Amino acid sequence: MSVTTAMLDNHPNDVIESDLITAAVDACFECAQACTACADACLAEEMVAELVRCIRSDLDCADVCAATGRVLTRQTAPDSNTLAALLAACITACSACADECESHEDMHEHCRICGEICRQCQEACRDLIQALA
Amino acid sequence: MSVTTAMLDNHPNDVIESDLITAAVDACFECAQACTACADACLAEEMVAELVRCIRSDLDCADVCAATGRVLTRQTAPDSNTLAALLAACITACSACADECESHEDMHEHCRICGEICRQCQEACRDLIQALA
Amino acid sequence: MSVTTAMLDNHPNDVIESDLITAAVDACFECAQACTACADACLAEEMVAELVRCIRSDLDCADVCAATGRVLTRQTAPDSNTLAALLAACITACSACADECESHEDMHEHCRICGEICRQCQEACRDLIQALA
Amino acid sequence: MSVTTAMLDNHPNDVIESDLITAAVDACFECAQACTACADACLAEEMVAELVRCIRSDLDCADVCAATGRVLTRQTAPDSNTLAALLAACITACSACADECESHEDMHEHCRICGEICRQCQEACRDLIQALA
Repeated sequence: MSVTTAMLDNHPNDVIESDLITAAVDACFECAQACTACADACLAEEMVAELVRCIRSDLDCADVCAATGRVLTRQTAPDSNTLAALLAACITACSACADECESHEDMHEHCRICGEICRQCQEACRDLIQALA
Repeated sequence: MSVTTAMLDNHPNDVIESDLITAAVDACFECAQACTACADACLAEEMVAELVRCIRSDLDCADVCAATGRVLTRQTAPDSNTLAALLAACITACSACADECESHEDMHEHCRICGEICRQCQEACRDLIQALA
Repeated sequence: MSVTTAMLDNHPNDVIESDLITAAVDACFECAQACTACADACLAEEMVAELVRCIRSDLDCADVCAATGRVLTRQTAPDSNTLAALLAACITACSACADECESHEDMHEHCRICGEICRQCQEACRDLIQALA
Repeated sequence: MSVTTAMLDNHPNDVIESDLITAAVDACFECAQACTACADACLAEEMVAELVRCIRSDLDCADVCAATGRVLTRQTAPDSNTLAALLAACITACSACADECESHEDMHEHCRICGEICRQCQEACRDLIQALA
């Protein structure tokens, strides 16, 4: 059992959709890490000048995923409007970053991996937003 | 001249709507600080059990404003969809937190101040989203 | 192979001590999530007034681990002084949070789990700091 | 009166050294913003390949200052060891970033301003750490 699941199972409140929440929380934290790593790897490439757009989308996606991962983690007195709007922003940021990473994934393996992780996070957030609607 | 303005003025790109961006960036950073302070002050109140909802909305609003302040700060290769979705999430989080803080602002001055700062951030983000639309 | 490892393996630079870095990065992100979850679970407990100290140490530990996880992720042009000082701060925050969580782990399973994760992060950061010294 | 000061004045606890805390909190949030802006401005420069080290130190300094600003904001049940270690890390990160920015401040005004803000944050954190010792 993952730590995320164990913490949700031991929350004083009954947590609904806990499998989808676990998947989205884990995807957000993993995507924040992968995007931070991809921005940094792009920065070390000789052709960094051609990777400026990728670095920018990585940095944004990392920030949005980090915030979303924290908000999704919380189960006490949630606000459904904030949750829905933030999930929508996270889906948008992940989609934009995945589009960018995928556009040159043949040249940089770190971008290919990052694009894949962004797509997984986009899908985990979409699955959750649909279940909560 | 504020540091935020000075940094935008010295960015290699021409920054459009720089006054509205400065206002929104400064409001986001100030709101992230005020919400962190309000959550902490609520936690020190004897009646903390009655302030659980306020602490939760403060923590969420701080996280969303911190991410929005960073993304708005960036002017290189922006993605308009991510920006619009994140501004919408920030407006929603600020509005929810202001509603909560205002509902008991007569009892706690820190909640009254925090509610006011959330409203200012909500408005600064709305002004920017309308100008960018 | 974990995503953290895959990203390090595909970084343009040769990454030294990549196993210890992977362990510390993963521990920091996991601890940031667990501490955020523990603060939130404490907030939902009826006896929240007796858990104020735990919530505070959880929030601090989450912030320090999140920053450390990001800085450790980066492998381009590192500054060894910043890395050492931040690892020391992370070890201190994790140790303080683990002490607090462990002091009442018999009453709350979420605190027991969080204390365990904090200790793992403390050790992963200590292993890395010793290898880099 | 600044919002930071107003929030400290209205905290349920008596806050000692509140002037130095306000100065350090404000300096940390301002430095997190300026470093995020400087990293982004460097990224938009034609000579980005020569600014890789500056971008890296900006990103680290922004993360450490953001975490320090949040932890310093909290006045409930503080842990003096965590505070001291984090202030030391922040001083180190600010000093490293200022050194880097100052080394090419004649070429980029955004680096000159950022270096100045980093020095101010370094000093505000040092003043606080000395008062708390």
